[in-house]
Amino acid sequence: MTKKEFFNMVDHTILKPNATKEEVIKVLEFARDNECASACISPCFVNLAKSILKGSKTKVCTVIGFPSGMHTTNSKVFEAKDAYNNGAEEIDMVLNVSKMKDKDYDYIYNDVKSVVDATPCLTKVILEVCNLTDEEIIKACEICENCGAKFVKTSTGFSSSGASVKAVELMKNAISNNVKVKASGGIKNLEECNNLIKAGAERLGLSRTNEIANEIQ
Amino acid sequence: MTKKEFFNMVDHTILKPNATKEEVIKVLEFARDNECASACISPCFVNLAKSILKGSKTKVCTVIGFPSGMHTTNSKVFEAKDAYNNGAEEIDMVLNVSKMKDKDYDYIYNDVKSVVDATPCLTKVILEVCNLTDEEIIKACEICENCGAKFVKTSTGFSSSGASVKAVELMKNAISNNVKVKASGGIKNLEECNNLIKAGAERLGLSRTNEIANEIQ
Repeated sequence: MTKKEFFNMVDHTILKPNATKEEVIKVLEFARDNECASACISPCFVNLAKSILKGSKTKVCTVIGFPSGMHTTNSKVFEAKDAYNNGAEEIDMVLNVSKMKDKDYDYIYNDVKSVVDATPCLTKVILEVCNLTDEEIIKACEICENCGAKFVKTSTGFSSSGASVKAVELMKNAISNNVKVKASGGIKNLEECNNLIKAGAERLGLSRTNEIANEIQ
Repeated sequence: MTKKEFFNMVDHTILKPNATKEEVIKVLEFARDNECASACISPCFVNLAKSILKGSKTKVCTVIGFPSGMHTTNSKVFEAKDAYNNGAEEIDMVLNVSKMKDKDYDYIYNDVKSVVDATPCLTKVILEVCNLTDEEIIKACEICENCGAKFVKTSTGFSSSGASVKAVELMKNAISNNVKVKASGGIKNLEECNNLIKAGAERLGLSRTNEIANEIQ
């Protein structure tokens, strides 16, 4: 994998609640200058991202119902539309894990479908795999595909653990070629990236993008 | 402090994203049966809380822009109205810590004021004190009071640390008698509760309410 190929599959990400504007700008400029797939920033920075990424190949990506997923469907839909109106091109929404635990699949379907249909954005659904059983991961992937989500994504990066090869394999096997897997959360080095890609991930959510790119010869 | 006095100042809380409906119902029934000040649950459970708490002294409390605070002001306002329409009587909103770091006080004022004004709910503002300097805590308290918030609250319980006596004292000193302090996040036993109350807290956000009440003779 060349550096260019690596950057092209990275959502370069800063979502910590105490990030300063200066830090967010650095992330946006890095993503733009290296042609990352997207820069993933909090909703309150979508306007800023739009202005910095304008005319570049790097998409504006933001998060919806993040990181708990426990917002109402109505709120997630409003937030998605608001993000789209502010300039978002990709949105990573969080599944309602609690409703998944309760096997309330109608709720899950309606929650995901409503957000997918709310905007023309490419929509990824964050499963937060560390809180789900294998069966729940598989079922969630099936529902997300039925809803028209373009990606299923492993993790928010704000729970007990993040991306794992095992979760990516489970997810990849549960979906058709119409859906892709994004691995994210706590990914630290190139070896981990390579293992996640081998397992089926086609997008990586990373904060340490620069450090990892420097490992590529 | 009697058990009754203790319960009357507790927001009995369950906000973990993998809480099952059964667990949430137990929290709601406990809060109702013991006349806690409120039961604090995620937005997707406000309807359920309304039905279980109906006719009781215990208020329906939920969280807005939780736990990151990085949602747009528009989204926070929508979420607050949605929660009120679903039956919420108290809302705990999260401050945008990032904008606080950038000294964007106009943003903070507008963000808090918009949510305070959006509904007739009693509004508490969560500062997430572990991410703020002493000066930022004091400034945030002043802005929250100017916005008409009824409480300033220490923590979400989802960051690096929670309530502290030092933070409560700082907050208490920064506000007039029109505003109260809620201590929350990681409070484990009666001794901590007593210290936080002595420092000025008039409401406690607790998950371990029952265990702590059992310490009271």
